[in-house]
Amino acid sequence: MTTSTPQPTAVRAGTGLGHGYVHGYSPTEARRLGDQADTLAGLVHTGTAYPPGSRVLEAGCGVGAQTVHLLDSSPGVLLTAADISADSLAKARARVAAHAPGADVRWHHGDLHRLPFPDDSFDHVFVCFVLEHLADPAAALAALRRVLRPGGTLTVIEGDHGTACFHPLGRAAQRVVDHLVRLQADGGGDALIGRRLYPLLGDAGFRDVAVGLRTVSADGARPALVESFTRRTFIAMVEAVRADAVAAGLTTAEEFDRGVAELRRTAEPGGTFHYTFFKAVAVNP
Amino acid sequence: MTTSTPQPTAVRAGTGLGHGYVHGYSPTEARRLGDQADTLAGLVHTGTAYPPGSRVLEAGCGVGAQTVHLLDSSPGVLLTAADISADSLAKARARVAAHAPGADVRWHHGDLHRLPFPDDSFDHVFVCFVLEHLADPAAALAALRRVLRPGGTLTVIEGDHGTACFHPLGRAAQRVVDHLVRLQADGGGDALIGRRLYPLLGDAGFRDVAVGLRTVSADGARPALVESFTRRTFIAMVEAVRADAVAAGLTTAEEFDRGVAELRRTAEPGGTFHYTFFKAVAVNP
Repeated sequence: MTTSTPQPTAVRAGTGLGHGYVHGYSPTEARRLGDQADTLAGLVHTGTAYPPGSRVLEAGCGVGAQTVHLLDSSPGVLLTAADISADSLAKARARVAAHAPGADVRWHHGDLHRLPFPDDSFDHVFVCFVLEHLADPAAALAALRRVLRPGGTLTVIEGDHGTACFHPLGRAAQRVVDHLVRLQADGGGDALIGRRLYPLLGDAGFRDVAVGLRTVSADGARPALVESFTRRTFIAMVEAVRADAVAAGLTTAEEFDRGVAELRRTAEPGGTFHYTFFKAVAVNP
Repeated sequence: MTTSTPQPTAVRAGTGLGHGYVHGYSPTEARRLGDQADTLAGLVHTGTAYPPGSRVLEAGCGVGAQTVHLLDSSPGVLLTAADISADSLAKARARVAAHAPGADVRWHHGDLHRLPFPDDSFDHVFVCFVLEHLADPAAALAALRRVLRPGGTLTVIEGDHGTACFHPLGRAAQRVVDHLVRLQADGGGDALIGRRLYPLLGDAGFRDVAVGLRTVSADGARPALVESFTRRTFIAMVEAVRADAVAAGLTTAEEFDRGVAELRRTAEPGGTFHYTFFKAVAVNP
């Protein structure tokens, strides 16, 4: 699958440059996603609690990093977790089995653009860190709206790498962040999608769209967050695209490493790192 | 006063390019500051309430745009409001007289680096949108710490133009924001100061530094905020440096206007605009 394919790019399909999921599918990446989810659980899931018995779809559950937190916040829901990667889905299943063995979860292997469920199958749909990887998020939202009952809610959480704000502000550090944005765009995604959730959801026919911003702010007063977010989530994500960035001719290995070294200084004493997530909730009219 | 002066640049001294207060002192600017303060009052002042009888210094009160809100949140304080501009101070005095005629306010015309008050004169110091305009904010913080009693608190609120995040993301729009940052730097200030409040306060000898981020998010769901923040605060601030940006050779009038037109689209249906303020509270040990 390439970015010139006119059809919607599948969720997290393929690895590496020019394909859906820019961060790849390595064990390191699966661990990074788990670290990220644990760190951000409060930020992402606060305010999302579905009543017991609700039919909930998590579209693009990946390795289940968010699934376990969703089940923590909404015990007793009837969850369907869908992903296009069979390998990720197996990891998600194992994670949920270990974390919430009694949870009622159906696992669906497939493309979220072509879900086999009848119209109005779900009361709520939850989508976290997925739209940013899609070539046509509007098409995905339309497909999700079809399976959501009228009056049901859609919740979408996405980042926006343009909100990364750090001190010291090194030029090489800013460039590696820009490379990540560029690689994701080359793969058909949009690492700056947070800022446009509001019009995306409205254009897809949802109503009462409300977007809230949730900022991670890591400095010397929050050493655990510096470790878990700045180092193990953000910088780890940047480091993971080193080979792709060099292969794409965006930078040299040396320049890339200089950028990462500058980013690391934001996690040292006196440094600060801030990043904003966008959480949108909307209703299917 | 120029940026090559080795002494600390005074607060809001002078107008235009190469001098302290990048936004100037026009009636339009005074009105913009009032609009901005009213829009952001909750964001800026929430969490700041000093007990009646507290000796409070507002350093750099300008035209009193924040002063009236400070007095609303902390009735009964003994306020000293200081500014280097006699004209601004007169406006602040009139504003407070109209808004809070019974308030106990001493007005001080002078440089916050050389306040004539004895050591430990105040229980609390409040500084809002001031450090960003100073050539040496560390020196200012040291001068403020001298007049703050041990155990007293310092509150600092600043913006950071690097957090401006908008959709549609036009290149010309991003450039005019960058010009504003550059002009403020040429004047000896730092429009990206928010991200470094944490180390600045720590290095100045304050303890228990806690920085919270407060984001304005304006989209179609919040039309009043689109009008008051995106249009009348942020875009108005950008437009006010048009002549300076052209005079400095950063841009042409035509290119600048294209950038402003792109920024205006973020305030139209489907557009979004986000900006983050940094609020730091710290203790004088």
